[in-house]
Amino acid sequence: MRRVGIKDVAALAGVSVGTVSHVLNRPEVVADATRLRVEQAIGELGFVRNGAAGTLRAGRSQVLGLVVMDVTNPFFTDIARGAEDVANGNGYVVILGNSDESDDKERNYLRVLQEQQVAGVLITPVHDDSTRLRQLRDVGTSVVLVDRAALGTDQCSVSVDNVAGGRLAAEHLLSLGHKEITFVTGPSAIRQCADRRAGVKAALRNAGIALGGGLQEVVVPAMNVASGRAAGEKLLQGKRKPRAVFCANDLLAVGVMHVLLRAGVRVPEDVMVVGYDDIYAAESAAVPLTTIRQPTYQMGRMAAELMISECEQPEQHAHQQILFQPTLVARNSTGRPV
Amino acid sequence: MRRVGIKDVAALAGVSVGTVSHVLNRPEVVADATRLRVEQAIGELGFVRNGAAGTLRAGRSQVLGLVVMDVTNPFFTDIARGAEDVANGNGYVVILGNSDESDDKERNYLRVLQEQQVAGVLITPVHDDSTRLRQLRDVGTSVVLVDRAALGTDQCSVSVDNVAGGRLAAEHLLSLGHKEITFVTGPSAIRQCADRRAGVKAALRNAGIALGGGLQEVVVPAMNVASGRAAGEKLLQGKRKPRAVFCANDLLAVGVMHVLLRAGVRVPEDVMVVGYDDIYAAESAAVPLTTIRQPTYQMGRMAAELMISECEQPEQHAHQQILFQPTLVARNSTGRPV
Repeated sequence: MRRVGIKDVAALAGVSVGTVSHVLNRPEVVADATRLRVEQAIGELGFVRNGAAGTLRAGRSQVLGLVVMDVTNPFFTDIARGAEDVANGNGYVVILGNSDESDDKERNYLRVLQEQQVAGVLITPVHDDSTRLRQLRDVGTSVVLVDRAALGTDQCSVSVDNVAGGRLAAEHLLSLGHKEITFVTGPSAIRQCADRRAGVKAALRNAGIALGGGLQEVVVPAMNVASGRAAGEKLLQGKRKPRAVFCANDLLAVGVMHVLLRAGVRVPEDVMVVGYDDIYAAESAAVPLTTIRQPTYQMGRMAAELMISECEQPEQHAHQQILFQPTLVARNSTGRPV
Repeated sequence: MRRVGIKDVAALAGVSVGTVSHVLNRPEVVADATRLRVEQAIGELGFVRNGAAGTLRAGRSQVLGLVVMDVTNPFFTDIARGAEDVANGNGYVVILGNSDESDDKERNYLRVLQEQQVAGVLITPVHDDSTRLRQLRDVGTSVVLVDRAALGTDQCSVSVDNVAGGRLAAEHLLSLGHKEITFVTGPSAIRQCADRRAGVKAALRNAGIALGGGLQEVVVPAMNVASGRAAGEKLLQGKRKPRAVFCANDLLAVGVMHVLLRAGVRVPEDVMVVGYDDIYAAESAAVPLTTIRQPTYQMGRMAAELMISECEQPEQHAHQQILFQPTLVARNSTGRPV
């Protein structure tokens, strides 16, 4: 599988590679007759120059793939925007794949991106099993993990300390007098969920609270508003009404709050709610949502920067595992007026 | 540019194409030694079977491109989800490009998708100029317009009647006693904005209100929350406070409302606000938002169905221009309790 290259164009037009390059980049310096011959060759061969910056590269396309777990979650689209901004500024484009938290869909996307010979793949993998990503790297495709820490030092990753984030959320609720936290979360196979849960447990342990009584869990199949609504219904139906709810992301929290408020439960008076991510909907929610902020846009930028460094300067490139720290943003949903 | 095909695998392994197909689809019916030989040939040639459904096609990949104007807008990600669900069910995958309302970025994505030889492109074009899309179709790539009506009958499109939607919003505000509407909108080069504006004008005309006094406009550069906030600040600074605001999408409305509420302006008592789209954030906004609902997920499904029909059965396929009708969803922001 070989692309039509600038050399093929030069050969067909009977000119040097430099002349083709001139036609592409500074057509005004080329004689009209020559320019026309080169343009005709470009047309005949179907030559497509690589990349937005107009650089001429052989073999590798200037395309990066970004595979996210839920394209309808602003958390991931903010990452995408950050990655795109850096990629575009360096002459790359980003194509997005939505694994939808499904292992099968993720496999499909990775196969397609490999078929398409993208220069690199930025990915928030659904599971921790890295065989698939190793195979991708074995065939020469760079991989940067996003919102997932690399387990070794042999690849780049950009992530946020999810254990610290879970602990921040739980400590906030404990500081407000609660001794029992209801954790609304996606499947624990999603490492973000498992890590945030570990943070809650650590906070409870530090406060001397037994996990048996101190931690209730509602596990939902997906981390979106619909699942949040389902969790809210479940909380309403339970015998003991929760007083402090921590949701593993803001979309879940928005769904939970919506159901609670419609049922006449007051937030924060009857129940306090904490989310995670600080998407735009957190601040403008019916009750502005206390949440754990992640530097999403920055994560996307950083991931793309590491990727482009790896693609452009493989010799000098040193793999980095970046770990951002999350911060607590206290709002009305836990009693702090905005 | 030629893919390694099933024939190459068969030739190298010294077996028939049918045997390779068996190895791929029903390995249990193939003798172990033969299977191993085929698998070795697949490995040596780097053969990648096309598509998720396991069908074997030559030349065309089973990839569809979807180019949206703002990937951070849930309106477009709901469309993406609908398109993906249908595509995945038919053995296609969808890769997403974000033109970010930029003509340059759109051009880049279309070039990349053509380079990647996708089977088809679903697109909400930034501008109406269709030269670029015609070129894409000339080289054999199917194009379906999404959220944009085709101007002729020579291609498929799925859109919603934006003039009717604008009229619905304005008529709702007029029916509540207003005689002056402030329209917060993106650039009129975006046809959705222009059409919704035309709908507002039609409603004012029908009500016998002069456009000069009846329609105020605030034009912002992008249709997102940040631009909505900027519009809100502008409304606060104006000499005459608006009483009825119609925003060209929900993200703008969320931003406008957020700024107004923080400044102590009451919604709907002091000012009524109407959005457009009915994204999830509309219902769960600080004041639940009256809006014009579009069948986003259905649009995505329908667009993918038309595309797949065009790709799979080009002979029988008849181009269709689907026009959905929008509906008014009245909520608190215009005085209707939820």
